[in-house]
Amino acid sequence: MTSQTGFTEIIGILGGMGPAATADFYTKLVSMTPGHNDQDHLRTVIWSDPTIPDRTEALLGTGPDPTPWLLNGSRVLREAGATVIAIPCNTAHAFVPRIADHVGLPIIHMIGEVARHLTTLQPAVRTAGLLATTGTVQAGLYQEWLARYDIRLVLPATTSRQAEVMAAIRAVKAGKPAAATASLTDAARQLTAQGAQAVIAGCTEIPLGLPADDVEVPLVDPAVILARVLVRRARTA
Amino acid sequence: MTSQTGFTEIIGILGGMGPAATADFYTKLVSMTPGHNDQDHLRTVIWSDPTIPDRTEALLGTGPDPTPWLLNGSRVLREAGATVIAIPCNTAHAFVPRIADHVGLPIIHMIGEVARHLTTLQPAVRTAGLLATTGTVQAGLYQEWLARYDIRLVLPATTSRQAEVMAAIRAVKAGKPAAATASLTDAARQLTAQGAQAVIAGCTEIPLGLPADDVEVPLVDPAVILARVLVRRARTA
Repeated sequence: MTSQTGFTEIIGILGGMGPAATADFYTKLVSMTPGHNDQDHLRTVIWSDPTIPDRTEALLGTGPDPTPWLLNGSRVLREAGATVIAIPCNTAHAFVPRIADHVGLPIIHMIGEVARHLTTLQPAVRTAGLLATTGTVQAGLYQEWLARYDIRLVLPATTSRQAEVMAAIRAVKAGKPAAATASLTDAARQLTAQGAQAVIAGCTEIPLGLPADDVEVPLVDPAVILARVLVRRARTA
Repeated sequence: MTSQTGFTEIIGILGGMGPAATADFYTKLVSMTPGHNDQDHLRTVIWSDPTIPDRTEALLGTGPDPTPWLLNGSRVLREAGATVIAIPCNTAHAFVPRIADHVGLPIIHMIGEVARHLTTLQPAVRTAGLLATTGTVQAGLYQEWLARYDIRLVLPATTSRQAEVMAAIRAVKAGKPAAATASLTDAARQLTAQGAQAVIAGCTEIPLGLPADDVEVPLVDPAVILARVLVRRARTA
């Protein structure tokens, strides 16, 4: 069936990491698409496989490699007709170099798009803070991309503080976002004290537990940035 | 890739009718799945095609038949590995008899499940009210299923009142749920005045515009009923 709208793009979402973050990302994608009726919206196919092995455990060497699951999900999306792939999971981006050449579709790199977005904020962000999983932090994903734009990255100052962020993320995954709010608010405050002019909510679960109003600098939600890029791309394709 | 969890079911969601309702349904499915980490959740594939022709217009004879789009979406879900199909759109259920024999997968009938659910409420519901699209009302879907359980259905009393409900649904689809609340609350009040002991939010957009607290009898959300049936089924498969 062809689209009635003229949009040729079909968004493929490689999700399930976690499932609540996937639902939240699709909600954001829909709400950020301008339109007055259903037919103004983008065709989307979502593969949500929560059984993908934990990305942080794989990066720390304590769990299986999720690459085969990511390749399988990408194949499902391609066969379903997707023309572009979005991965609403920060940590999974550590595995993008392993799958990119085998997917046969462009992958919009969420972390690269966040770095680019930071350069557009006014006043200019020279130092950004990161709240993310221990896997994302250790994989150096944001460090690498922000360095390309000469932005300094500050992290939770001690391993115990990073462990508190990881515990808060797990609380959100367990369906208890309220339990995460106090420690995430405190962690964001510590980052701004270290000079952060913006805080990256660098795990898709974090915005579910941390209200933007509780952070004194801009809280950048990578899912929102990714959704905006997808909408703009689809409407100009 | 096989599941690490032992769940053999893969939920197929035939969505996009509308996209916001699909996002809301998947959010409900995730939040109603008991689990402490990602891997406790169900594998799900979602085909969200908002370009499917308007179901109400088709039923009123003023628009194209969506059946080919529904068959195409079902094929995509089956080829992606889905083992069961859920359709989080009440009006689309008018077309289920046209596709059921061609899909090759069981379809969980949301409206049938709502009728069954009403018989389990205490005190027993003998009369239920319906807020739904004009297409759903005219197709007689809830009338047919509730009659099987000897439950009487009451509808908005005049065509102009039904037209107000339809306008409220369109406001939600246009991303303006707050604009719908006053007329939906008023319509629900009229149904309870006609004897409704429960009100069915019989279009997936309605719960987005009508808070349950604004209705003096139980407000039954078919999306919640459908999600609960899917979770129970997957965990016992």
